[in-house]
Amino acid sequence: MRVFKIPEATIMRLSVYSRFLTKVKKQGKVTISSNDIAKGAGVNSAQVRKDLSFFGEFGTRGVGYNVEELEWDILKILGLTVEWNAALVGFGHLGHALALHRGFQERGFNFTCIFDNDPLKIGTKLNDVEVLPLAKLEEVVAQNHTRIGVISVPADAAQDIADSLVRAGVQAILNFAPVYLSVPQDIELRNVDLAVNLEVLTFYLEMHRQGYSTERTPNLAK
Amino acid sequence: MRVFKIPEATIMRLSVYSRFLTKVKKQGKVTISSNDIAKGAGVNSAQVRKDLSFFGEFGTRGVGYNVEELEWDILKILGLTVEWNAALVGFGHLGHALALHRGFQERGFNFTCIFDNDPLKIGTKLNDVEVLPLAKLEEVVAQNHTRIGVISVPADAAQDIADSLVRAGVQAILNFAPVYLSVPQDIELRNVDLAVNLEVLTFYLEMHRQGYSTERTPNLAK
Repeated sequence: MRVFKIPEATIMRLSVYSRFLTKVKKQGKVTISSNDIAKGAGVNSAQVRKDLSFFGEFGTRGVGYNVEELEWDILKILGLTVEWNAALVGFGHLGHALALHRGFQERGFNFTCIFDNDPLKIGTKLNDVEVLPLAKLEEVVAQNHTRIGVISVPADAAQDIADSLVRAGVQAILNFAPVYLSVPQDIELRNVDLAVNLEVLTFYLEMHRQGYSTERTPNLAK
Repeated sequence: MRVFKIPEATIMRLSVYSRFLTKVKKQGKVTISSNDIAKGAGVNSAQVRKDLSFFGEFGTRGVGYNVEELEWDILKILGLTVEWNAALVGFGHLGHALALHRGFQERGFNFTCIFDNDPLKIGTKLNDVEVLPLAKLEEVVAQNHTRIGVISVPADAAQDIADSLVRAGVQAILNFAPVYLSVPQDIELRNVDLAVNLEVLTFYLEMHRQGYSTERTPNLAK
């Protein structure tokens, strides 16, 4: 099997580049330089070229990139030329926010099933999607061949949910519960720990208070 | 000025370690090995020791770490032995979820002011905090000497909000809007782009579909 080593920060920046390209495309721009993409993404143009170089040759020296072509090429790299169905587990405030997050819909992510254990939420609908009891999770996710699970339940419930999602056959999990989840090696797991992100900031503020200067890290590869 | 270079992934892991230590402390554990911390955080013990070594000597060879001491030491490093007041701008679904996120309160983050431009939200209260109009942002944030701003407004409004927060004197911004924000060098900016996190997963799934094996990245340093 071919191993493909790409820095994760590169993947995250590609996502940002493609969204910027979508924006300038809507503004009617036809060609764009790596420098302009860099400006729009808050990195330098060498970074843009390096990130793209992992995936082949793009653009024309001296001319730049065709906006629509590059947007499409990056979307293809990111697997976003198709729509993705995801299962949302945990329909609390965060789950609700995720289900309604325009940033997901715009990029082709659809929550086709939502689960919660709260009797007051079960049976309610978000758009056409009914909130189902957790007891139905494995059956429904397996039936729909849903490949992505998003976990927004409390920390102490998250591992059980992850186990159910894995048994139901999901291949990737996005976890918002502030806890480490153990999953099989072949499952792609990504944690978004909201508090961690604030604590990186307080760390820097505390360092400054102590009179240290901290290296400013590029703010997009997060 | 002393420059202090710490890998950001280290800071993020420290945040995870400290939360794990809080958990085992509640379970009555008095001492713990780097190996157990590593297990609880999904990394290896060498990583734990290396992360801690940036900040001095911790624990006793052969004995391990005193849970409560190490928890406190890490909280000190992260600037979390004090409470932090933050301003929340954008009280939509995501803003609401952030304001109620237990993970923030548990770690000493308080949203002491909330702003939105929706007349239906202005004047409503979350706990004791009244939602104020955006027009009040600079005045109130400056008066309260709020040092952290959290942005959860749509992408096209985010830069203006960031500018206002900077004028009001915040030192750090956590941005949830899917757009690159330009801020002065001395402002700590961190972006949490929810779609980017899903797109890293679809990238891996697409690579697998094409028959590539991708390097599994440790799932916590995110």
